[in-house]
Amino acid sequence: MNIKITGSGSYIPTRTVTNLDFAKHVFLNDDGTPLNYSNEVVTEKFRQITGIAERRYVEDNLQTSDIAFLAAEKAIESAGIDPETLDYIIFAHNFGNVRSGTIQGDMLPSLSARVKHSLKIKNPKCVAYDLLFGCPGWVEGVIQAQAFIKAGMAKKCLVIGAETLSRVVDPHDRDSMIYSDGAGATIIEATEDEGGILAHETASFTHDEAYFLYFGNSFNTDHDPDVRYIKMYGRKIYEFALNHVPLAMKECLDKSGLAIEDVTKVLIHQANEKMDEAIVQRFFKLYNHSAAKDIMPMCIGKLGNSSVATIPTLYDLMIKGKLKEQQLHKGDVVLFASVGAGMNINAFVYKV
Amino acid sequence: MNIKITGSGSYIPTRTVTNLDFAKHVFLNDDGTPLNYSNEVVTEKFRQITGIAERRYVEDNLQTSDIAFLAAEKAIESAGIDPETLDYIIFAHNFGNVRSGTIQGDMLPSLSARVKHSLKIKNPKCVAYDLLFGCPGWVEGVIQAQAFIKAGMAKKCLVIGAETLSRVVDPHDRDSMIYSDGAGATIIEATEDEGGILAHETASFTHDEAYFLYFGNSFNTDHDPDVRYIKMYGRKIYEFALNHVPLAMKECLDKSGLAIEDVTKVLIHQANEKMDEAIVQRFFKLYNHSAAKDIMPMCIGKLGNSSVATIPTLYDLMIKGKLKEQQLHKGDVVLFASVGAGMNINAFVYKV
Repeated sequence: MNIKITGSGSYIPTRTVTNLDFAKHVFLNDDGTPLNYSNEVVTEKFRQITGIAERRYVEDNLQTSDIAFLAAEKAIESAGIDPETLDYIIFAHNFGNVRSGTIQGDMLPSLSARVKHSLKIKNPKCVAYDLLFGCPGWVEGVIQAQAFIKAGMAKKCLVIGAETLSRVVDPHDRDSMIYSDGAGATIIEATEDEGGILAHETASFTHDEAYFLYFGNSFNTDHDPDVRYIKMYGRKIYEFALNHVPLAMKECLDKSGLAIEDVTKVLIHQANEKMDEAIVQRFFKLYNHSAAKDIMPMCIGKLGNSSVATIPTLYDLMIKGKLKEQQLHKGDVVLFASVGAGMNINAFVYKV
Repeated sequence: MNIKITGSGSYIPTRTVTNLDFAKHVFLNDDGTPLNYSNEVVTEKFRQITGIAERRYVEDNLQTSDIAFLAAEKAIESAGIDPETLDYIIFAHNFGNVRSGTIQGDMLPSLSARVKHSLKIKNPKCVAYDLLFGCPGWVEGVIQAQAFIKAGMAKKCLVIGAETLSRVVDPHDRDSMIYSDGAGATIIEATEDEGGILAHETASFTHDEAYFLYFGNSFNTDHDPDVRYIKMYGRKIYEFALNHVPLAMKECLDKSGLAIEDVTKVLIHQANEKMDEAIVQRFFKLYNHSAAKDIMPMCIGKLGNSSVATIPTLYDLMIKGKLKEQQLHKGDVVLFASVGAGMNINAFVYKV
């Protein structure tokens, strides 16, 4: 028995927000003082580091579970399965449903229950739960689906990553330009087909790193201190990621028994282009190799960082031939990897 | 190999709130009109149905992850394990950390990451994630721990259920008297000891039932519509639970291969005393049996409904001999069962 991704879907929000759209934002330092640069300089420096030129936000009437449903519908259709045969719906997110213009996240009922409701699935044996694991949530959902299949508790799982970070960003924090909205969904199935998940790896670094990403106040010290936003210590995360992600990727690949030369693509969480490039270079260097030019597909430039949604969206675009010059073919070996709040790191080796 | 609970801990908040403490509340109907009864009549009727005379709230300086940590410390100590040997920390909750006097839930980082941080665990291979599954979250966490152990991915898991419902209740809704705060934690281990988890069952009913428990506005129509609270359709939940929970419990027991006569105790989610009694009676009736007088230990009278925390707290009190006339002994067969938001139902058969 192998465990494979047999279908995928994504929802790319319709509102395009370019770096120019931040021209009138009042960006501040973390102590509330103004930045010493014009917004033109700030956004250009931002683009050079992160690779992000534009990002997508959902329309005001949509929430995280709505776009997750749209991605899930497509994943089920592309897998060609009857949704009533699903054993699990695993939904990774970080903030619940946050309505436009409000600050409360809503997770009652869980977002997975809402998606199952919207899909009109009647079968009560289809277990729907939400998973909070930072940006690596979708990868972890796949690893959990694999566990249920191996334990004989499931054959088919719908694993979703969806997030609307546009609803939790501080307008005075330049890091807010990183974040975007999106949803990706996949069907994970036990199959007799060749390939599938060959190895996986997960790690949670919480001793010194637990609060590198956190829920904090606006940089505008006049703001209500009871309203909090997604915040990060970018430099610490960058250093942490470079020190730990390549090693976790290597541990995962080594467990699979494959060699570095076997790796066709690395699908990494689209967090920040320069950081992702440095991670992948360092990963290959651990094998005294250099990374092939097209090894790491990126869609961050146009889509931004939508947390749990970046990897399943990227996979969906590739497998459906929607990314120019970046496709997946039968037999390709793909290393999926992610890093994010927790701080959590995970990876799996996958043969298409 | 068997899978057993090898340690437990709980945290019972220190603020006791009696039904009398609600004497000055202005309770309203769901359309904002006043109730036709005095608060004395309302609270007495409430006590008769739910069995709740008092409940516990946390002090203002504590949050959900704080009390979870206190329960987790005790569970680790009572299992006699080195916390660095834990493979998973699974934390079931529903609203994240809600600070006293505020309305935003904080789940960044995840509450499991915070507990792991507070436990000072260094081992990155201890994977910490949060699980949202309504009140049945702790039972589901045990079932997921079992899956990881069966799949060869874990040997020792810390499974926590903790919640501070006092932070999300509408003061104008008499249902708010049901809810309380609490934390329970258990160590789930692969062991050569006899007994352990013999069967499990999970079901998610979302087609018609997804919004029986939901996040909604205050019954006071003057309140800010952007502030929402835990809300429920009590009558619908009661009927749903009576129709479905006994059947799920039977399915679980039948899978275990044991007979109804083998069941020593039923540890059911402390939701509402009359409802729990009716469920257990109907369960035994499915076998043409009547329930033994002491089959169902209850602690709801003094502790209220703390969601995910009720069952692990009850187990902890019993296994440590802290519940008068309700104890657990080696070889006892315990049926754990829960029902809650989603609507989710689950159960497992456990031999002490």
